[in-house]
Amino acid sequence: MNFADSLINKIKSSSPICVGLDPRYSQIPEQIRNEAPTQGAALFEFNKGIIDAVHDLVPIVKPQIAFYEMFGLDGLAALSRTVEYAKEKGLLVLMDAKRNDIGTTAEAYANAYLDTTGDFSSDALTVNAYLGYDGIKPFVEACKKNNKGIFILVKTSNTSSGDLQDRKVDDDDIPVYELMAHFVDSWGHDLIGKSGYSSVGAVVGATYPEEAKKLRKLMPNTIFLVPGYGAQGGGAADIKPCFNKDGLGAIVNNSRGIIFAYETLKGFGPETYKEAAREAVIKMKKDIEGVI
Amino acid sequence: MNFADSLINKIKSSSPICVGLDPRYSQIPEQIRNEAPTQGAALFEFNKGIIDAVHDLVPIVKPQIAFYEMFGLDGLAALSRTVEYAKEKGLLVLMDAKRNDIGTTAEAYANAYLDTTGDFSSDALTVNAYLGYDGIKPFVEACKKNNKGIFILVKTSNTSSGDLQDRKVDDDDIPVYELMAHFVDSWGHDLIGKSGYSSVGAVVGATYPEEAKKLRKLMPNTIFLVPGYGAQGGGAADIKPCFNKDGLGAIVNNSRGIIFAYETLKGFGPETYKEAAREAVIKMKKDIEGVI
Repeated sequence: MNFADSLINKIKSSSPICVGLDPRYSQIPEQIRNEAPTQGAALFEFNKGIIDAVHDLVPIVKPQIAFYEMFGLDGLAALSRTVEYAKEKGLLVLMDAKRNDIGTTAEAYANAYLDTTGDFSSDALTVNAYLGYDGIKPFVEACKKNNKGIFILVKTSNTSSGDLQDRKVDDDDIPVYELMAHFVDSWGHDLIGKSGYSSVGAVVGATYPEEAKKLRKLMPNTIFLVPGYGAQGGGAADIKPCFNKDGLGAIVNNSRGIIFAYETLKGFGPETYKEAAREAVIKMKKDIEGVI
Repeated sequence: MNFADSLINKIKSSSPICVGLDPRYSQIPEQIRNEAPTQGAALFEFNKGIIDAVHDLVPIVKPQIAFYEMFGLDGLAALSRTVEYAKEKGLLVLMDAKRNDIGTTAEAYANAYLDTTGDFSSDALTVNAYLGYDGIKPFVEACKKNNKGIFILVKTSNTSSGDLQDRKVDDDDIPVYELMAHFVDSWGHDLIGKSGYSSVGAVVGATYPEEAKKLRKLMPNTIFLVPGYGAQGGGAADIKPCFNKDGLGAIVNNSRGIIFAYETLKGFGPETYKEAAREAVIKMKKDIEGVI
């Protein structure tokens, strides 16, 4: 089944929440760190607990690959085990790697992340389109062939995203992020599934609700991956414009706010980090349901 | 020593050539593939031969990480061994990974590639600045702290690079790649070494000589990493504008044209792939010296 259709089906039966698996090592409960034979093993053990706690409440998890790469091969082995375990538990896996390169190299990246087998074989991948269409095409083709998805950076959640993304281009008087939205809409056209959504998605930060409102209209068939909710400052009202009138069209990511909820939610601690994560997802689901 | 100074010193005593280690598996001589216990082992064995053949002729090698990631953990183990071996042989290592993310995640990437230790610890890294300055700052800080370098994508060598990079921005009437050049020049200011060059470099494709000419003026202290020579169509005349009048300021990358020279150079074959690579570097050096 087309990736977008799989994701939309899962959202309908659970929630539009993506759990970001960014296991910042120093925040992993001490007991796990002490008992694990390696740092990578601690990352996996921690992730396994999170996946166990949330797998029936969310459609998809998003490992941020930097937090694994920083531990070298040991960290990447943990990533591979995490991907495998999440799939076993019925979750879709979105690899947040923001890969980008010229065509023949992009093809190699597609083989790494959007093939049907391999240590890092995921359901979807984030990509960066600074290089233009020929750097994106191999990913789109892999999506078609293997029922996978990509999410292209459009308007990112960080403070400096405007340095380039807000600049007005050409005589069109539209900012770069709108130009990118037109690209995403057009590049994803052939991958629209029965759900009406395309397997070519867009990254649109929760921290820019005004921009999201415009982008929602420019990309009616595009699923938005929405980072920036929670730790980065975005709230429920901010993510509202990312959804279509059908209450679909977006998955809202939360990483730290869920996986390290034990540090902030009252009544939880390191020994109940799983329960805290589950509680955080339930709260977030209610929060989102209040606005869509 | 500041990365730029190390690189410039090495260029002066060898050549302005960067050897791209993109070991496309199917092009690796059959004997190596047959004898290696794993695909990753074949990648490393092949790379080792290339490094042995060229290490005294060039300052730097550039593994393109996609060609390792596509073989999963086995491929990444080969990458780690390649990085280690290249350093042992006195070469600088530029990891071509085009990483990019928001600040706290960029910091994790900097830990992975620009730290002084770790499986993938390199001397420099390619990065993509679509996210703006706060996504680049952690890399710049790692460069300062650890004497490392980065190369920011400015004008890439591929056909579609103009989709975004050639668009004129704001009322300045300058294309995106020139805006990016201004950023690179300013972000790299604090990292200018005794050589007069900065450890914050730029990627400028050999396939766009007119643009390179303009960019050379806009970034006088910036070292250009120039892809696109050889297999992608760029020749010596095309790379000329990437150099300053001092004959410095650029490293010209060649991947396929060197590592798989045995397929194209007369008198060589799979069993003499090392000699062919050495011959290709010598030819390329003469070719470049003819124009700078």
